Amino acid sequence: MTSLYDTPHTRTRDDLSAHLDAGLLSPVRAGTPVEAAVGDSAWLQAMLDAEAALARAQARCGTVPAQAAAAITAAARADLLDVRELALAARETANPVVGLVKALTAVVAERSPQAAEYVHRGSTSQDVFDTGAMLVTQRALRLIVADLRAVADAFGGLAAEHRDSVMVGRTLALHAVPTTFGLKAAGWRRLVLDSVERLERVADTGLPVALGGAAGTLAGYLQYAGEGADPAAVLDGLGAAFADETGLTEPDLPWHALRTPVADVAAALAHTAGALGKVAADVLVLTRTEIGEVSEPQVAGRGASSAMPHKRNPVLATLIRSASIQVPALAAVLTQCLATEDERSAGLWHAEWQPLREALRLTGGAAHTAVELARGLVVRPDRMRANLAVTGGQLVTERISAVLAPRLGKTAAKELLTQASILASRTGLPLCEVLCDNPQLAGILTREEARALMDPSAYTGTAGSLVDRSLRQE
Amino acid sequence: MTSLYDTPHTRTRDDLSAHLDAGLLSPVRAGTPVEAAVGDSAWLQAMLDAEAALARAQARCGTVPAQAAAAITAAARADLLDVRELALAARETANPVVGLVKALTAVVAERSPQAAEYVHRGSTSQDVFDTGAMLVTQRALRLIVADLRAVADAFGGLAAEHRDSVMVGRTLALHAVPTTFGLKAAGWRRLVLDSVERLERVADTGLPVALGGAAGTLAGYLQYAGEGADPAAVLDGLGAAFADETGLTEPDLPWHALRTPVADVAAALAHTAGALGKVAADVLVLTRTEIGEVSEPQVAGRGASSAMPHKRNPVLATLIRSASIQVPALAAVLTQCLATEDERSAGLWHAEWQPLREALRLTGGAAHTAVELARGLVVRPDRMRANLAVTGGQLVTERISAVLAPRLGKTAAKELLTQASILASRTGLPLCEVLCDNPQLAGILTREEARALMDPSAYTGTAGSLVDRSLRQE
Amino acid sequence: MTSLYDTPHTRTRDDLSAHLDAGLLSPVRAGTPVEAAVGDSAWLQAMLDAEAALARAQARCGTVPAQAAAAITAAARADLLDVRELALAARETANPVVGLVKALTAVVAERSPQAAEYVHRGSTSQDVFDTGAMLVTQRALRLIVADLRAVADAFGGLAAEHRDSVMVGRTLALHAVPTTFGLKAAGWRRLVLDSVERLERVADTGLPVALGGAAGTLAGYLQYAGEGADPAAVLDGLGAAFADETGLTEPDLPWHALRTPVADVAAALAHTAGALGKVAADVLVLTRTEIGEVSEPQVAGRGASSAMPHKRNPVLATLIRSASIQVPALAAVLTQCLATEDERSAGLWHAEWQPLREALRLTGGAAHTAVELARGLVVRPDRMRANLAVTGGQLVTERISAVLAPRLGKTAAKELLTQASILASRTGLPLCEVLCDNPQLAGILTREEARALMDPSAYTGTAGSLVDRSLRQE
Amino acid sequence: MTSLYDTPHTRTRDDLSAHLDAGLLSPVRAGTPVEAAVGDSAWLQAMLDAEAALARAQARCGTVPAQAAAAITAAARADLLDVRELALAARETANPVVGLVKALTAVVAERSPQAAEYVHRGSTSQDVFDTGAMLVTQRALRLIVADLRAVADAFGGLAAEHRDSVMVGRTLALHAVPTTFGLKAAGWRRLVLDSVERLERVADTGLPVALGGAAGTLAGYLQYAGEGADPAAVLDGLGAAFADETGLTEPDLPWHALRTPVADVAAALAHTAGALGKVAADVLVLTRTEIGEVSEPQVAGRGASSAMPHKRNPVLATLIRSASIQVPALAAVLTQCLATEDERSAGLWHAEWQPLREALRLTGGAAHTAVELARGLVVRPDRMRANLAVTGGQLVTERISAVLAPRLGKTAAKELLTQASILASRTGLPLCEVLCDNPQLAGILTREEARALMDPSAYTGTAGSLVDRSLRQE
Repeated sequence: MTSLYDTPHTRTRDDLSAHLDAGLLSPVRAGTPVEAAVGDSAWLQAMLDAEAALARAQARCGTVPAQAAAAITAAARADLLDVRELALAARETANPVVGLVKALTAVVAERSPQAAEYVHRGSTSQDVFDTGAMLVTQRALRLIVADLRAVADAFGGLAAEHRDSVMVGRTLALHAVPTTFGLKAAGWRRLVLDSVERLERVADTGLPVALGGAAGTLAGYLQYAGEGADPAAVLDGLGAAFADETGLTEPDLPWHALRTPVADVAAALAHTAGALGKVAADVLVLTRTEIGEVSEPQVAGRGASSAMPHKRNPVLATLIRSASIQVPALAAVLTQCLATEDERSAGLWHAEWQPLREALRLTGGAAHTAVELARGLVVRPDRMRANLAVTGGQLVTERISAVLAPRLGKTAAKELLTQASILASRTGLPLCEVLCDNPQLAGILTREEARALMDPSAYTGTAGSLVDRSLRQE
Repeated sequence: MTSLYDTPHTRTRDDLSAHLDAGLLSPVRAGTPVEAAVGDSAWLQAMLDAEAALARAQARCGTVPAQAAAAITAAARADLLDVRELALAARETANPVVGLVKALTAVVAERSPQAAEYVHRGSTSQDVFDTGAMLVTQRALRLIVADLRAVADAFGGLAAEHRDSVMVGRTLALHAVPTTFGLKAAGWRRLVLDSVERLERVADTGLPVALGGAAGTLAGYLQYAGEGADPAAVLDGLGAAFADETGLTEPDLPWHALRTPVADVAAALAHTAGALGKVAADVLVLTRTEIGEVSEPQVAGRGASSAMPHKRNPVLATLIRSASIQVPALAAVLTQCLATEDERSAGLWHAEWQPLREALRLTGGAAHTAVELARGLVVRPDRMRANLAVTGGQLVTERISAVLAPRLGKTAAKELLTQASILASRTGLPLCEVLCDNPQLAGILTREEARALMDPSAYTGTAGSLVDRSLRQE
Repeated sequence: MTSLYDTPHTRTRDDLSAHLDAGLLSPVRAGTPVEAAVGDSAWLQAMLDAEAALARAQARCGTVPAQAAAAITAAARADLLDVRELALAARETANPVVGLVKALTAVVAERSPQAAEYVHRGSTSQDVFDTGAMLVTQRALRLIVADLRAVADAFGGLAAEHRDSVMVGRTLALHAVPTTFGLKAAGWRRLVLDSVERLERVADTGLPVALGGAAGTLAGYLQYAGEGADPAAVLDGLGAAFADETGLTEPDLPWHALRTPVADVAAALAHTAGALGKVAADVLVLTRTEIGEVSEPQVAGRGASSAMPHKRNPVLATLIRSASIQVPALAAVLTQCLATEDERSAGLWHAEWQPLREALRLTGGAAHTAVELARGLVVRPDRMRANLAVTGGQLVTERISAVLAPRLGKTAAKELLTQASILASRTGLPLCEVLCDNPQLAGILTREEARALMDPSAYTGTAGSLVDRSLRQE
Repeated sequence: MTSLYDTPHTRTRDDLSAHLDAGLLSPVRAGTPVEAAVGDSAWLQAMLDAEAALARAQARCGTVPAQAAAAITAAARADLLDVRELALAARETANPVVGLVKALTAVVAERSPQAAEYVHRGSTSQDVFDTGAMLVTQRALRLIVADLRAVADAFGGLAAEHRDSVMVGRTLALHAVPTTFGLKAAGWRRLVLDSVERLERVADTGLPVALGGAAGTLAGYLQYAGEGADPAAVLDGLGAAFADETGLTEPDLPWHALRTPVADVAAALAHTAGALGKVAADVLVLTRTEIGEVSEPQVAGRGASSAMPHKRNPVLATLIRSASIQVPALAAVLTQCLATEDERSAGLWHAEWQPLREALRLTGGAAHTAVELARGLVVRPDRMRANLAVTGGQLVTERISAVLAPRLGKTAAKELLTQASILASRTGLPLCEVLCDNPQLAGILTREEARALMDPSAYTGTAGSLVDRSLRQE
């Protein structure tokens, strides 16, 4: 058997880093915009953006020369650093910022030795890492929200178009009573808009800069502000400037060990993945060969099987579902990390990084995939109508039961329908026949009334009104 | 070996149900108010409250006689039903409402056969179960929020009192730079208030009635509203009345399969458990015998060991931590259930019930426990001061480095301090001595200046300002 | 609105404890044998069994008088203690054993003051709790394994009976190629037997007594063994005797903080819940109204809906699925607790208790439910045959592709079948017609050959051999 | 603010894929051998290895020409394919194998058009993916086991060396009774060997080839074996040959939808991560500045802070802990995927891939990191001795209680010690003094006896024997 370690492709370090993750195991996000937005290069750039913004903020507060801040900003480019080297160096210090500061300082020093003195001034690794993480998160959330809005719009269109497309409502895997595809699509839209609301709340108000210094007192920043600097003024001034330079918010307290922002992102992403997972679950049911009420957009080559030429697999729903299964567990890891000890945890902080990135890119990939699914979904009202007839009228037993209740008593009416349904199922007769042949109903239910009651499209309740009302809400 | 099945205590059904869960394995919530508020009796009562409120709402809409609604309300008492019998019957129908409706109908019928016709009219199991679950949740969240406010108040008091109590800031398990106990307590308060904000948002606007009927179209309700009833009017009228009767909100769409409310509760509870878990983690560190900076309130018998007479275990923090470890996983189950299929899932809905209850009572138990911890926490500024001296001054290397940076260059200053720290640690000499003996610093740092720099209480940065600012915020 | 706190049913403490959990929210286990086996009464009894066994073991080693051990054994009855009182007392000490020892000592002392001196001698809470937990686990695992064996037997019967019942194989929600119901049932059996193997491995060799004393050194036990007692002899002697008295194994080292046994139980339960969850997932698909290839055992009243008289919901599969969703998260909590600190954790140990019980009873309830499902499953070969025809022959495109590959080349053959399938789907024509009309196949595939290839029952591959081979394996 | 999307480094596709994951967010595994072994290049190679082995197995069975198998084997090199292109193509088919087959066929065809006809013959995507996944897993498990053995050896050495190094035993964060560092190290070794046992069981017998064809019946393979081929013979022959060619085991049944192998890997990895997490938790406690009983190996530059020159952070334990927090959640995802529907799930299969890889590399990274930690751990018996004295003798209250029990009665003795401990703590007096001054003990406990009892090194119970016995076990 060929051993991995003999083959030429693993010989060089560069090769290794190049192929650790090209998306091969995660097609839900491979090549989608969020993938690049949260990748290591993007993360490195965001941390550099944080260093640069911090220098500019200090410049605005007068503790760093404006020229130094400009030089640091000019040098803070990910393409000037070696991301793999920083990753390897991070093993020595348990975070990549120590190496980043060293490398950035060297780049700045080449251009301006004086400016190099001001890199990371008064700061700590976590300020830079967390601010960078919030920048990455903000960029990713914007992508996700834009995709979700497109999804919601498409579902809104489907809901309006199919406001009165009657279909089987299904509960516990069985036909229940009629509903409409419009109501189903409106429900999908609502859930996706619930996600948008949660994501935007976080994106707009829940992503703060990290500014605490070594143990959350800003002592280093204050020290560099010089003898006699007023702590309250430094605190307010530097925080506001840093927030302004990054586009993030200013926190009430340094949050090195108060991890609400990360927990909030996790919760909003888990909701989103779950919402999209609900859509995927429904699409997969309705796509089943025997049901066939919807199908995914048909694109040449899409959904092909390596074995079966006839297959057009519902790949979009499959990919979305694969993400929806993973994200809640990742979110749980992030939530767990709230219970961090001390002013900075030995391990809980470090455990957040990859799950945060993974939750962002899985959810973002699912959202991007859902745009295509929602816009291209093929809806088949004819199959919906055909399936309404499958049970020979049993879909409306609730209605007949309600009609008979005042005539027979609630319990007797329900029992009569239960027995009639059993008989109909056993014999294969339409429920209408069974009922009309039932001597108990002689003079109580006429054949004409029975037939009229059997029309599924006359028993969709308030479905249309629900769609109308829901579409009026953002 | 004695077998369980031979012993007399397991012989009768009543005994069994009585001792399935008396809290023996979950001391964090045993006997706390939330335990009863979410127990089976309370849950049953809440579902009965939902049935009664539904009847009253229908009476307000004119589809149920007022007398019937009154009779149903009078009969809707958990103490008239056998909760164990309902639990056992639920195995036949996969939910407890089918049996509950039967049993409630019988109770009503004894008093008023006519009224019995109106029990659960047009409704479905999930409307009753979910509305009941939201009532239970609302009651539990109120208890939790009240406890958390008490916790936050107590931490606010500690933060004010210890605004300037200097202590060691710890990162990655080691002494870092000085901080204050006031800042630590302010952080605890902030995190707990973050939880309050999230819980209240859910409690105030996120707990809707469930009103959908068999498959979310309200068809049964509309049917019973009579021929020619206007769907939009029934939808709006009944929804508003039901919400009003229960004190819950009216949802945009029936949420049988759109589980945002449950996911939101889960996220808020997970945040709360995590926030309290952070407090517990800190208390446990500071309680360690070698550190001894805080201790739990001392109550006779509290914290006793079965083996060691000298032990006064930090049981409150231990119990809180035990809850904080469990809740994120339960929340992940609830979040996962968003990806439900059809108009009602076969299994995902049913999987929510026990984890929801467990998350509520673990979090509520932890919050209740935290009140006692926060109010009674013993703080030991003397031990804080003693621990500040443990490293012989190394706690302020950041500061000295900042002072020397303009004199030696940033990199050289940091390197000099690194070497000095290593030497101090190796020799056991105070850092001040090591520095003053360093020929590199001759003429650069005087002994007086070095000594002044060594004072930890002069290097707490903006800690006091942070406390002041944070306490001004609710 | 009626408030919970006003109602009479919450007035007394006894009532409260009686109705905290009667199974109302967990029908999957309500009333099943495992529920009682892991309930608080059973757990208390198991801890008392542990105390008694420890006394007898010490008697065998000569450090406790035989009469005292007998008196302790006689007194160690759960029905003599108040489980609710112990639960409440546990809040003071963070575990229920401190109170249990006190209460048991009092019971013994009433009968024999001398014997009371020997209760819990040299021991620690965790020795008693963990040994009790292993006893409970052992009893529960036996129940689960017995149920799973019954399930596997029933599936074995179905596999043999339906060895050649051809049905549609489904992948990614669509018809793929034919398979047999026998192979499906054999797969269910295999998975369940995989669980049995894992559970038995744990039950037979993985459930040790806990014997460590205050911090895992057995110092207390050695102290009471008297001056000059040989440590190695005490260690081996007491361990062997304790294991023998309980029927558990003797561990290599005290495992207060080495939690392999709990992690192993968790892993085996998660496998079991997952295996049963796979069965439930399949049953739910095959039960769908449009598919109808199986149905759950039909029992009067079973599966009734509160709204729809015609419904016979697949409640067994629904309940099983509800358990399978919860157990992996509980298992993750237990696994997490491996990373415990010190000689006994402040919180991680305590976090195990309720999740362990819940995982046992959910899995046990699911196993018990599965017996009824497996034994009573109604299989409908007629519906299987009907569904094989639904795609008009597309189920065998793989086969035709294989037949044509040598004649046309692999790629051309696959492409031809892909296009033919698309045409057949679009037009609704049987694939056979489409192929026979294809001029490319003139002289390459005759109509007779095409028809013969279309027979799904001739393309079940090695399904029969797989069933035969698998059923030969235990 | 600079936007990510403007910067030059995101312009080209190659750049993007190169920097998606260079390990920047996961220092625990960056650059460790397991990282490359499970990366995308390695995974691709393993899938190609599976295709080649399948061709050779078919050649051994006579259904593929030997030359074709040789040509396929020669072409099956990851460096001849573009992994990023395959990742992107996988979005169209929901798995990377469809594209891989196409690309591999093209490479083979360039060299031998005839051989190209035999690529992936009779196979299905899942056979290739899952066999590849098992190969990757096997390679990774070997690396992990080798590292864990080294860790266990190092801990064995520490246990022997420090068999009698007395230290404080800690429970619930407080000093309990004495133990030895030898016993602690023996416990770490035991836990790691438990992991080795579980990993080896899986590696040796639990990693099967996947061989099922389109829906698990091997119909395609049988079809290509030719008319009249005996199904049982093809099944056994091909299975055995494929297993032999890959070094994996032959499964009883195709496991496309019977996911025991993945669940087993998950459970073993979760145990390992947890075991290493326990070690890390202990090391972090003992490293705390106030405790200082161990420290990580000191390497120049290791553990540096970006802010504080004196810091030498325990980075190895920190990294290990960061992994131990993530793996249980990933394992839960994998376990959840047992409950897969149909012959191949739409989504649950796809959800396994990235979590499986992530669990392997986090655990493998932690194991590799632990080798350095275990081999280089600095142990400080002097600090252990100093800490034994911190409580002024309270560490042995259990012992004194045992000595006094026969003289005063168990309850009275415990109570006396409890009060004495409280008094000693309050006054700061050594416990010995308090006891000797207690009139109740006049004539009962002499000062000499009291002093002798106070020696912690005389109260380590069977610690030495436990170490001896445990080290004799593999």
